[in-house]
Amino acid sequence: MEVRAFAPASIGNVGIGFDILGLCIERPGDEVSARFAAQAGVQVSGISGQNSENLPRDPQKNTAAVAVQALLEHLGRTDVGIDLHIYKKMPSGSGLGSSAASAVAAVVAANELLQAGLSKKDLLPFACAGEQIASGGFHADNTAPSLLGGIVLIRDNATLDVHRVHVPRGLQICVVHPKIEVLTKTARAILKPEVPMPQYVRQSANLAAFIIGLYNSDYPLIGRSLDDGIIEPQRAGLIPGFHAVKQAALKNGALGCSISGAGPSVFALFNDETIAADAGAAMQQAFADEGIDSEIILSGVNLDGAVLV
Amino acid sequence: MEVRAFAPASIGNVGIGFDILGLCIERPGDEVSARFAAQAGVQVSGISGQNSENLPRDPQKNTAAVAVQALLEHLGRTDVGIDLHIYKKMPSGSGLGSSAASAVAAVVAANELLQAGLSKKDLLPFACAGEQIASGGFHADNTAPSLLGGIVLIRDNATLDVHRVHVPRGLQICVVHPKIEVLTKTARAILKPEVPMPQYVRQSANLAAFIIGLYNSDYPLIGRSLDDGIIEPQRAGLIPGFHAVKQAALKNGALGCSISGAGPSVFALFNDETIAADAGAAMQQAFADEGIDSEIILSGVNLDGAVLV
Repeated sequence: MEVRAFAPASIGNVGIGFDILGLCIERPGDEVSARFAAQAGVQVSGISGQNSENLPRDPQKNTAAVAVQALLEHLGRTDVGIDLHIYKKMPSGSGLGSSAASAVAAVVAANELLQAGLSKKDLLPFACAGEQIASGGFHADNTAPSLLGGIVLIRDNATLDVHRVHVPRGLQICVVHPKIEVLTKTARAILKPEVPMPQYVRQSANLAAFIIGLYNSDYPLIGRSLDDGIIEPQRAGLIPGFHAVKQAALKNGALGCSISGAGPSVFALFNDETIAADAGAAMQQAFADEGIDSEIILSGVNLDGAVLV
Repeated sequence: MEVRAFAPASIGNVGIGFDILGLCIERPGDEVSARFAAQAGVQVSGISGQNSENLPRDPQKNTAAVAVQALLEHLGRTDVGIDLHIYKKMPSGSGLGSSAASAVAAVVAANELLQAGLSKKDLLPFACAGEQIASGGFHADNTAPSLLGGIVLIRDNATLDVHRVHVPRGLQICVVHPKIEVLTKTARAILKPEVPMPQYVRQSANLAAFIIGLYNSDYPLIGRSLDDGIIEPQRAGLIPGFHAVKQAALKNGALGCSISGAGPSVFALFNDETIAADAGAAMQQAFADEGIDSEIILSGVNLDGAVLV
C-alpha cells in the first residue's frame, strides 16, 4: 500500500507579519508518498523533481523523514518502518516554503498510512520538527498555511497557537520567482536586532489593519496595510531589481507587493485575476530588465492546504 | 439655544496596541454645552466639575475651544461666536482620555449648534486638533473611540485612517483608577527608543491575535493575546502596586489586564459582569494594600461613542 499527499507552497511573512503570518497558495507544491517498509524507522527511498540532487537522503537530515520520525515517536510506533519518496515540484530556496511543503506532505501521508487519525492541527508540531532541520528554527509560518490552508496567524510558535483568518472571496496572488539564490541564513543575518519605536508602531498598525481588511473584505485597506517598513527595506538589496518589480506590480493594479518569506520570490495581492496576470507579466519584465529570468505563479488563496492525492 | 453633548472616557493602547488602539467605555465622560455668542470666536464661559480649577479657560489653550475653533475654520464660519461650558465628569491625568472627551463633546455640540451636518468621522480631525493642545501630539487613540464608540484601530494618525473592530457581545471592562498622578510626559519619556526584534515579533502576533479574537468572539484568545511585553514592563514602575493589582485581576477571572493609556488607571477585560465586579474589588484591595485609594469603573464596551444630551 502506498499513500500519497500533496502540500502546497506558501508565502511566509506576507510582508507585514514577519515570522507570524503565512498564506497558502494553490500550486506549486510537493508530493510525498509513504509505504510500509520491512526495516523499522524512516527511510527516504527516492527524491525526484526540481533541485532533488541537492537534498539530503539521510533520514536525520531530510525534512520529510525527520517529520515522520517525530510523528512515529509521538505515536509510540518506532517499531514501524516507513519508506518515503519525495516528489519536489517546487524550487528550493525560493522563499515559498519548499522544505515546509515536503515536511507537511510527509506527515499527512504517514498519518493516513498509519491510520493514526490525527487532525491537521495535531500534525503541525511534527511538520514543524521536520522543517526545523532545514531552517534551523521551530517556525510555523510556512508549515501552518501549507498544512491548514488559508491565511494563518501564528500567535506563538512554542505552543503552536495558530489561527486561520477570514479570507475575502476573490483575493488573488501573483508570485514572481526570479532564478537567483538568496540564502535564508543571509536574509536573517542582515536584519538589525532592534526596531525603532515609530516603525514598530506603524508596522503593528498595518498588521492589525491588514487583518481587519481581510475580515471586512476591504481591499483598499488590505492594500494600504501591506506596507512593510521594517523587513523589506533591509532585504530589498538582496533581490536585484526588487524596487522596479514592486513598482511594476503597483502601477499595474496590485493592492500591495512585498517579499515572499526570505525571498527572492516577490508576491503581490490583487482583487482581480486578469489584473494579476497583467501585473505578473510587468513584474517579470522588470526582472528581465535586470537580466534575471523568472517564473510567474498566479493563484487564489488555497483554503484546503495539504490533501491526499 | 444651547446644545449639549456627552463624550465618554476611553482606554488608549489597550495594552498591546501602543498608540494605535482605543476602547470606548460607557462612563464616566465629559459634557460640553455650546451656544451662540455675540462676539466672534470661541470662548470658554465656564468649567465645572472634577479638577476644573486646573484647566485653562484661555481659548488658545483649552482643548474644547481649540477643537471648536478648528471646526469653525474648516467651515469658513470664523465670523460666528460660540460660547462653551465644560462639565468635567471624569478625572484629568487618569489615563482615560479626559482631554479627548472634552474635545470630542465640544465638536459634537458645536456641529449640532451650527447645523453643520458633519458626520462623526468628519469631526475627528477637529477633536484631534483640540486634544493635541493637551497631549502635544496629533493622536486619535482616545478621540476616535470617544467619538465613534467601540474598539478602534488607528492605522495612521496623519490621515486618520481609523477602523472600528468587531466587538464580541458581553465583553466587560473593569477600570481601577488609583488616586495618584502619572504625567503622560513622564510615561512617554521613559520609553526606550527601540524595540528588540523578538519583542516586536511577539507583540505584533499578540495584537493580530487580539483582533482575531475580537472578530471570532474567542475570549480565551483575547485573554492570551492581551500580553504587553514592550510598554507595560517599562511603565509598571510608575504605578505602585501594579503587579499586585494585575495579579489580583488575573487570579479573579480577568481575561487580561494592563495599563490604560499612559496610566495610572489599570484596566482588565472579562466575559462576565459579576466576575468583573469581584475582580474589581480585589484590584482595589491590592491598591489599598499599597496605601492607595482608588475608584472602580465597571462598564461594557460603549458602541455609541459621543451623543447629544
